[in-house]
Amino acid sequence: MREVTAYDWVPDFARGLVRDVRVRWALEEAGLAYRPEVIDHQQKEHPDYLARQPFAQVPAYRDGEVNMFESGAIVMHIAEGSEALMPADTAGRARVLSWAFAAMNSVEPFIMNVVGTELFCGGEPWAPGYLAYARQGLAQRLGRLSAVLEGQDYLVGGRFTAADLLMASVLREPAGGGALNQFPALAAYRGRCTARPAFRRALEAQLEDLSAPAPAGFDL
Amino acid sequence: MREVTAYDWVPDFARGLVRDVRVRWALEEAGLAYRPEVIDHQQKEHPDYLARQPFAQVPAYRDGEVNMFESGAIVMHIAEGSEALMPADTAGRARVLSWAFAAMNSVEPFIMNVVGTELFCGGEPWAPGYLAYARQGLAQRLGRLSAVLEGQDYLVGGRFTAADLLMASVLREPAGGGALNQFPALAAYRGRCTARPAFRRALEAQLEDLSAPAPAGFDL
Repeated sequence: MREVTAYDWVPDFARGLVRDVRVRWALEEAGLAYRPEVIDHQQKEHPDYLARQPFAQVPAYRDGEVNMFESGAIVMHIAEGSEALMPADTAGRARVLSWAFAAMNSVEPFIMNVVGTELFCGGEPWAPGYLAYARQGLAQRLGRLSAVLEGQDYLVGGRFTAADLLMASVLREPAGGGALNQFPALAAYRGRCTARPAFRRALEAQLEDLSAPAPAGFDL
Repeated sequence: MREVTAYDWVPDFARGLVRDVRVRWALEEAGLAYRPEVIDHQQKEHPDYLARQPFAQVPAYRDGEVNMFESGAIVMHIAEGSEALMPADTAGRARVLSWAFAAMNSVEPFIMNVVGTELFCGGEPWAPGYLAYARQGLAQRLGRLSAVLEGQDYLVGGRFTAADLLMASVLREPAGGGALNQFPALAAYRGRCTARPAFRRALEAQLEDLSAPAPAGFDL
């Protein structure tokens, strides 16, 4: 049986955004059943868990054959076995792989720099100056991505693939300083992807598992 | 014929670090011949090039069959066809994929935050405060990685794989504030990987192609 780790609780700002939702979405698109393996924030530091996920995060994923971490990697592994997420031709598959890494390395870090500072460091004296710089870097990356999606509905081969699943997931992070508002093609693209029934099911499943009360005095 | 794009010139701090060196390294390990396709910083903005590499960067890669970008993706594509870079078993291959994404999404962004600020924003009033924060985040990630590499020479299956190629490449970025000095297991790991003849050949080939004079008044 496929198992995906998920948290039993996160702060409100992270509800619906914990990265297990990406893996759940891929499994829903592929029509594959799975079991959520719900853990708390102490369990993620257990040596047995660190052997699976060395950075003490969710998701980790396993089935009878593989034992994986990193949402991008798990989604691509699922996609490799599913026509619902991957074109059949070598050229298309290679292009999906390119865009999968682009989502995680060329777009997400720029979003996280803005979002992380806004969420965790808003009161620091360096925050306003740094945020102006980071928002500029993000707008540049989103502008490049928008130029691609102004001419096409999906990233590869005119159809939804794992590349769109990952890119739309990245664009779901709270858009720092309203960055996505400057790029209507990206907002429309994100909406097109997240309107999919498989995404709605994945999101609801994550929210359902986030059912524990906040740990007393827990500082994420 | 395999073609990898590379620049004809970069500022001194980037020599040997432009990401085509990762792809060259993978091709050298796999024993595959390639042709560098050397471009300048105007050509990267040409619509034909943007159709291949939407973020106006190097490397882009193509052969008779695929047309790719993102060094992580290209390295993994090459690895999929090469025993020199990838274990034969499904579990090992999936673990290499996990670590490849970890290098690009869970480690590199933390390094680039420090390095990019040191290189480009050292004089900004917000830089010292932000750098203290970013160095702390980086040390935390490197500590997690070091805990893994204190017990083993390579990330997967006791042998060098594409995961090590990417992780060692990420650790080659100038280690902001001497971060790597705090983690002797990581410094040793990086040294073990970059001592490989295939890496030396890749590095020399990049430096050789970076032979153009600095463009007049060019601001990277």
